[in-house]
Parts: sequence; structure tokens; C-alpha cells
Amino acid sequence: MQEALRHKSFGGFLTVHDHDSAVTNCTMRFAVYTPPQAADGPVPVLWYLSGLTCTWQNVNEKSGIHRHAAEHGMMVVFPDTSPRGEGVADDDAYDLGQGAGFYLTATEDPWARHFRMDRYIAEELPALVADRFPAADMNRQGIFGHSMGGHGALTLHLKHPERYRSVSAFAPIVAPSKVPWGQKAFAAYLGADRSAWQAYDATELVARQRSKAHILIDQGAADQFLAEQLRPELFAEACRHAGQQLTLNMRDGYDHSYYFVGTFLGEHFAHHAGTLDR
Amino acid sequence: MQEALRHKSFGGFLTVHDHDSAVTNCTMRFAVYTPPQAADGPVPVLWYLSGLTCTWQNVNEKSGIHRHAAEHGMMVVFPDTSPRGEGVADDDAYDLGQGAGFYLTATEDPWARHFRMDRYIAEELPALVADRFPAADMNRQGIFGHSMGGHGALTLHLKHPERYRSVSAFAPIVAPSKVPWGQKAFAAYLGADRSAWQAYDATELVARQRSKAHILIDQGAADQFLAEQLRPELFAEACRHAGQQLTLNMRDGYDHSYYFVGTFLGEHFAHHAGTLDR
Repeated sequence: MQEALRHKSFGGFLTVHDHDSAVTNCTMRFAVYTPPQAADGPVPVLWYLSGLTCTWQNVNEKSGIHRHAAEHGMMVVFPDTSPRGEGVADDDAYDLGQGAGFYLTATEDPWARHFRMDRYIAEELPALVADRFPAADMNRQGIFGHSMGGHGALTLHLKHPERYRSVSAFAPIVAPSKVPWGQKAFAAYLGADRSAWQAYDATELVARQRSKAHILIDQGAADQFLAEQLRPELFAEACRHAGQQLTLNMRDGYDHSYYFVGTFLGEHFAHHAGTLDR
Repeated sequence: MQEALRHKSFGGFLTVHDHDSAVTNCTMRFAVYTPPQAADGPVPVLWYLSGLTCTWQNVNEKSGIHRHAAEHGMMVVFPDTSPRGEGVADDDAYDLGQGAGFYLTATEDPWARHFRMDRYIAEELPALVADRFPAADMNRQGIFGHSMGGHGALTLHLKHPERYRSVSAFAPIVAPSKVPWGQKAFAAYLGADRSAWQAYDATELVARQRSKAHILIDQGAADQFLAEQLRPELFAEACRHAGQQLTLNMRDGYDHSYYFVGTFLGEHFAHHAGTLDR
């Protein structure tokens, strides 16, 4: 593992790392914010999953997240949104291929060899973090994300509820099987058989197996993608049927940007701390 | 004046505006963060001046500044760092021409026609802000900035101490006449006669006329530009001789980035509030 970048921020450090992944079969880059409290002992670990087109960089630069992580004494891990590189399959569209991994294991060509982001995030990267960041308390992990990353956070939580004990999302894609972004990506990565899609659809997953966690979602009411791509009401309805605890905050006037994420990030950290600091 | 962009953020609004400037003879773009408190009455106005290559965008996206402005109930105005456009003189270097206005009135060709950023910021833009943002309390103005913008904040304060009642800077260029960035820019914009440079050099200005304000400067000790371009010790020495109140915080491990600015921005807002909220 190579350290590519290091910045001191709010008393802790943002570091960026490259490593060869045996899961995605390429070099992967991820970032970690290590809070100042890590110098004194173990700290909880939050996984932040980013949206379409993003890398570790966007949320680190644009959301003010380090301030919250430093205040709460939480390490945050920022995986990339897909495998990348010259040898990795891609598409000209922003919503397919590199930058659009959708946190799943692709079964269709040309994607199947590299596009395995759920296994990368849930299996390979945690082992690396535990090994290289000794202050990471792997018994206290939470997960959150934005847009496509909100989809990743919800689905990974519902499939690994004991590992990711707390979960939240900003403007998540909650029902990919029912919206254009998800339908396009799932058809490409998973094929036409929709039975394979259910394992990556939070609205389907929660109907089959609710978690004990209280799920927090914030959604801008002026988000340009709300009606067509996000449709949080579908997830809220599924949670109500399943008896899943959910708080869905509709935020008047807010759009899909990092200004929205930054505004409510403090409440999300408090939400995760409420579970992970106990 | 045209509104080019609007985002809700921390309960207030970031808006971006284009207008024809009679001072710089071109279309200028600037941004304003209007805090939620502006709905209820007048609020203080902070001027944030950015560094080389930047526009309104960098600090708005990268520093978490809206959170502080909303907490303190302060409007923040973000001018551009130079005139811009096809008809405006430029240079291939990042530290001369567009994006590198150095907050002065150029007297040399080809710069003199457009490069008048000090007059734009101190004369034309305040009148526009006062007219179009009725909540702006122009009797309570402060000024701050980063790097070249720190130079702008210090010099504009020292020349207009009654207008900008509070002042602070992040990693400012304090002695442009003595460092390569400043020498290159001043020679191009102002000519070879160094007597014309003094009016734009904070270290020279404070020696002639100290202000009643308490100047706050934060400087990263690991800043790559510290020894060659920034040299805060020259300003500290001039302040000591002049009897100018100054707090210069050297911050161990911090670099020149917005991670540094973001980390200490809260202390700068508290500093300005200490003067402007009285």
C-alpha cells in the first residue's frame, strides 16, 4: 500500500492510499480521515460511500466532513466509486462504468472481471484498514453515503447489519430496480434477469429482512433527481410494511449538491455516534 | 445584475451574480452567502478575498464557510481574484494576469484597462451589494482572505480602517515587494519604480499608519510557500515597530490548502464577530 497524499486537517490527518486489489483486479485508491483522538486509542469507523462520478476527493474537499469526524473522534474511510484504470471496462456515459460501480458484483461482460465493489468494500478493504490503521475499532462500524453511495450504504447495511451497526444516507437511490439510473446499471452489470437485482435494491431487501438499526435519510425537496431517480417514498413505504425504523427528513429548498450534504452532515454524525459511542 | 446560480446551504443561500463593471471594464462575477438571520434584519458583511487562480467557487465549495456564516449570522461577499474574459489581458503563468489581480490598480499596459481590483472591491462592489442586498449592514464590515487574498485583506484594511473594522488572514502574502510572487506581479502591473509598490505592501503600509484593529493571522508551519513567498515574520516585525496589535498563529503541520483554511475558519469568524457584533 502506497500513501499518495497527506493533509493535516482539524487536528487529524487525511491520507490517500493506493493498493492492488485482489477483488477488483486493479489498483484501487481510497482515503482515510484519522481523527486526533486516534492517537489515544481505538475510535469508531464510518464508511462514506460517494455518488456517481465521484472519488474520495469530492466529499473530503466539499462537505466539511473532517470537522465532524474530529469533533466526534471517528475515523472515516472513503472508498472509490468503482474500479478504474486503462485496463478496466468503461462507458462514455457518466452513469455506467468507471465512477458508477453501484456497489455490486457484476456478472455480465465486460464488467464482471473488475466491477465487484460490494465485496471490495465489505471484505478486502476492511481487512486492509484493520491491518494498517491500528486505531480503527472494527467492532464499531457505521456506514453512510450520498446518492448512489446512499444506495450502497443502505444495501450493505441491510446485508451486513451486525457489521455496520449504524446507517444513514443523503438523497439515496433507494429503489434502483424502479428508476432509470438503477435499471440501466443493473441491466448492464447483472443482466436482464431481475431476480438478480433484488440483492442490490434497498426497498426489496428491507421487505425481506429488516434491521434493528434506526435508518436516517435526509432528502432535499428541491433535488432535481427526486421524482425520477430517488423516490424515497418507495423505501418509506417498504419500511412501514416491514416494521423497519426509519427517519426520512424532507428538507425544503435543498438540492442534490454537497451544500446539502454539508448542511446536514452534523446530524448524521450525531446519529452514528448515538449507536457507535455506546 | 444577473443571478447565475443559487444553492440553499445551512439555512441561507449562496448566490452567484454577473454584472458589468465600470471599474474593470468587463463582466465580473461574484458570490454572496446570505445567512438565515438576514430574513429578520441587518447583518454584518464580511469580504472574503481568495488566492491565486481562485474564483468565488473554491472557498465556497472547499472550506465549510457557510456553516460559520450561518452560526454567526454574517453575510459574506466573495469577489473574483481578477477581471476575466476574452478581451482581458492575460499571461500563461498562474501568478500573473487572470486569476492573479493582486488587489491593486494597474498602471502599466496591457493591464491598466481592466486590472483595478482594489477600486472594484472597495468602491463599486460595496455600492452594488448595499443596493441589491438590503440586509447588508454596511456599517459593520470586516475583511479576510487567503494567500494573495490575505494580502488583499491586509492592504485594503490598512487603507480603509474605518470601513473594514475587523481583519484577518490565512497564510497571507504580507511583503509582496520582497518575495517573488509580489515582485513579478508588481513589476508587471505597477512598473519598475518601487515607490509605487508601497501602497500595496502590508508590511510597508503598517509601518506608516497602523490601524486600531487587532489583526489575526493564521499560518501553517508546513506551508510549502512559507519561507519564500509568505514570510510572516516580516509583517510581525513591522507591526512590533509600529505598535500594531497582531496575533500570528503558527500552526504545526498545516499546509497551504483549504484543509488548513477550513480548520481555523471558525476562529476567524469568532474574531470578526468580536468586533462586528458589538
